[in-house]
Amino acid sequence: MQHIEMTDELSFSRLVYGWWRLMDWNLDANAIVRRLEDCLTLGITTHDHADIYGDYQCEAHFGQALKLQPSLRAQIQLVTKCGIQLVSEHRPNYQRKNYDTRYQHIVASAEQSLKNLCTDYVDVLLIHRPDPLLNADEVARAFGDLHAAGKVRAFGVSNFNADQYAQLQSRLSTPLITNQLEISVLHHHSFHDGSLDQAQTLRRPPMAWSALAGGRLFNAEDERARSVRDCLQQLALKYDCSIDQLALAWLLKHPAHIMPIVGSGSLARIQSACGSLDVEMSRDDWYTLWEANGGELP
Amino acid sequence: MQHIEMTDELSFSRLVYGWWRLMDWNLDANAIVRRLEDCLTLGITTHDHADIYGDYQCEAHFGQALKLQPSLRAQIQLVTKCGIQLVSEHRPNYQRKNYDTRYQHIVASAEQSLKNLCTDYVDVLLIHRPDPLLNADEVARAFGDLHAAGKVRAFGVSNFNADQYAQLQSRLSTPLITNQLEISVLHHHSFHDGSLDQAQTLRRPPMAWSALAGGRLFNAEDERARSVRDCLQQLALKYDCSIDQLALAWLLKHPAHIMPIVGSGSLARIQSACGSLDVEMSRDDWYTLWEANGGELP
Amino acid sequence: MQHIEMTDELSFSRLVYGWWRLMDWNLDANAIVRRLEDCLTLGITTHDHADIYGDYQCEAHFGQALKLQPSLRAQIQLVTKCGIQLVSEHRPNYQRKNYDTRYQHIVASAEQSLKNLCTDYVDVLLIHRPDPLLNADEVARAFGDLHAAGKVRAFGVSNFNADQYAQLQSRLSTPLITNQLEISVLHHHSFHDGSLDQAQTLRRPPMAWSALAGGRLFNAEDERARSVRDCLQQLALKYDCSIDQLALAWLLKHPAHIMPIVGSGSLARIQSACGSLDVEMSRDDWYTLWEANGGELP
Repeated sequence: MQHIEMTDELSFSRLVYGWWRLMDWNLDANAIVRRLEDCLTLGITTHDHADIYGDYQCEAHFGQALKLQPSLRAQIQLVTKCGIQLVSEHRPNYQRKNYDTRYQHIVASAEQSLKNLCTDYVDVLLIHRPDPLLNADEVARAFGDLHAAGKVRAFGVSNFNADQYAQLQSRLSTPLITNQLEISVLHHHSFHDGSLDQAQTLRRPPMAWSALAGGRLFNAEDERARSVRDCLQQLALKYDCSIDQLALAWLLKHPAHIMPIVGSGSLARIQSACGSLDVEMSRDDWYTLWEANGGELP
Repeated sequence: MQHIEMTDELSFSRLVYGWWRLMDWNLDANAIVRRLEDCLTLGITTHDHADIYGDYQCEAHFGQALKLQPSLRAQIQLVTKCGIQLVSEHRPNYQRKNYDTRYQHIVASAEQSLKNLCTDYVDVLLIHRPDPLLNADEVARAFGDLHAAGKVRAFGVSNFNADQYAQLQSRLSTPLITNQLEISVLHHHSFHDGSLDQAQTLRRPPMAWSALAGGRLFNAEDERARSVRDCLQQLALKYDCSIDQLALAWLLKHPAHIMPIVGSGSLARIQSACGSLDVEMSRDDWYTLWEANGGELP
Repeated sequence: MQHIEMTDELSFSRLVYGWWRLMDWNLDANAIVRRLEDCLTLGITTHDHADIYGDYQCEAHFGQALKLQPSLRAQIQLVTKCGIQLVSEHRPNYQRKNYDTRYQHIVASAEQSLKNLCTDYVDVLLIHRPDPLLNADEVARAFGDLHAAGKVRAFGVSNFNADQYAQLQSRLSTPLITNQLEISVLHHHSFHDGSLDQAQTLRRPPMAWSALAGGRLFNAEDERARSVRDCLQQLALKYDCSIDQLALAWLLKHPAHIMPIVGSGSLARIQSACGSLDVEMSRDDWYTLWEANGGELP
């Protein structure tokens, strides 16, 4: 498994494990430990969380595995997020879906994540969504204090456009290390809005969420999804691989060093995803997939 | 009344008085003097003009008050604008509506504004609209000469997008101090096009024109206006205040330090507007209003 | 003919000759020599090519003239482009229309252009289109090696938006000297997407392709084309010139120092195009044409 240098002291595995659907997977702590060990064997060391995943339950469920097998902690990188508030029985004081990127919320959310994950630190904390009320000075202060306390090693964002990214970065003394974006063969938005250009200009590899288009690849019936699926199915014969491997290989071929998040409860699918790193997709086929989803080559 | 530091030597009152409809208000010079004094009592010290307001008549009408009571001048900040040419009986040599941001026009327009306003200087001169023929070097030269002559203390723009702002700024030796933008609960454009992000990145508080959506808040019948109005009416009960106070409080809560322009001939409405600074709008309610106008919180 | 300083050592003529339709013009090498001499007389010294023009045949056909009359080379500037691959009998190994901005392709394409053009160097090499797979580090390396070998004197891009331009520029030690954009009275895109602002901010005059809207000016029947044509026809009476002169004069009046590319096989039309530099279009008329194509002056 390829690794990507995010800072002098932090590397990510090229594929990142996404745990947002953990509560659907019926894995107990022992099973998660085994899954983490299997991931280490595969070379997947980076694990993506958010406070809100699984109605606020995923982090704590995952944390039980680290409690059971503490030696795993040093071998993995934990990414988590904050800044969204969901209406939930687990957060009875939230009245409506909201964003909150105030100092108090960021710090409290990160500290709760540490407790949930049964760890002393997370490797990276991301602001989950660009908050129209985001006060960059306040976020910078929260990041600074969390870093000084050893609770968070590096910071990033998710779903920020280039202007929002530049604004927050302008207040920070260290670089945001990533922007987690929705990127897939079915979702080209970041190719057009400057966010992928910015990631490359700043040499900050983006993470890709919904890297398989949230399953739309397999079952959506709109014209573009059909067109991309047809194309993937033909290429699957040529490359003798699965269409999800091809969809990931398409991301991996891009020069921005996109790191796809794969979020499956099935070890077999994760192993299959790793196969995407061995697919040597030709440029011709990359552009064919680009055009299948409406990408232009004038 | 809160004040905002615009430069080391210049502060704006958080609410700015907008005089663009002065000619409809039936105020003579004495009444304007009283209005300015009432504003001082309220803490409103910043007054927004443009050469073209009231078919080129507002500045001169307002100026009669300063002539009558010259001691007012030092207690207020005058903002005016240039760069648009209207077909008008008062400008018989203009053939069509036009922009003009050439050296000659900027300097002549500013000098005319001084004469009209019966003052030796304006605090801030804004380019009123982004002119597709704007020559930034020429604007810079005009700004430099007006500043050196003591005629204008600082400069800004209005309705510029981030690229236009950056272009003009690239030629200036001192920062543009503000971008006067259309921002309201019914007009989110600057939240999405990078202009509000830029204002925050550069720490340049924007002024908001049409801060009450030009009355659309009260009477427009499109779906969004109805949805925002319904929402404001409900919140008015909760906060025990008027819907225009809430609409202004929504702007005031934003971290960009937005300075709403209030343009009413009625002292009662101006006093009421000042009440917006006492409304402590919750974040929940801010986002509810955001969503009522189609703002997204994914 | 006005000249534009592109670098300390390189000037372009304000009008650039575009050779993309050379193969339709029935000009043999002797006729091209005469055409180049006529252009010198007119002051047109800059000639625009691309590897792919005329199904990969234009450069070589043009090169025969330079072979016949080598003394012309030092009196002209040659611009060419690379990065697109067309399906063609002349490139039998290309399977589909593609972009290729890899080191190998850029260097090989530039070297082939030198051979075709019968010259030791081109003045400027442009990346023809923003390639979604462009690796800016690799492009920078190709540019560096071509420059060090004396094969290309300066570099630029074509059709890049501001983010794409900034990304590539971030890897280069010398400035990109131009962005060749589609700009005309019928095509305002670059006025709105930041590319023209960026060109001005960086003081990099853009070249304009399809400066006469590819003939749409004369025969398109959509509402905007009709509206612009009507307007041009009226102004042609006023200025006593042709509508293509006016369309070019509209570009020339813009402060970005736009350099229109004129691509006609007819010497008479080229001579006529030069007349555009003598048209002193008023600002009023410039804005009238702006509005005729939907440009706004709020």
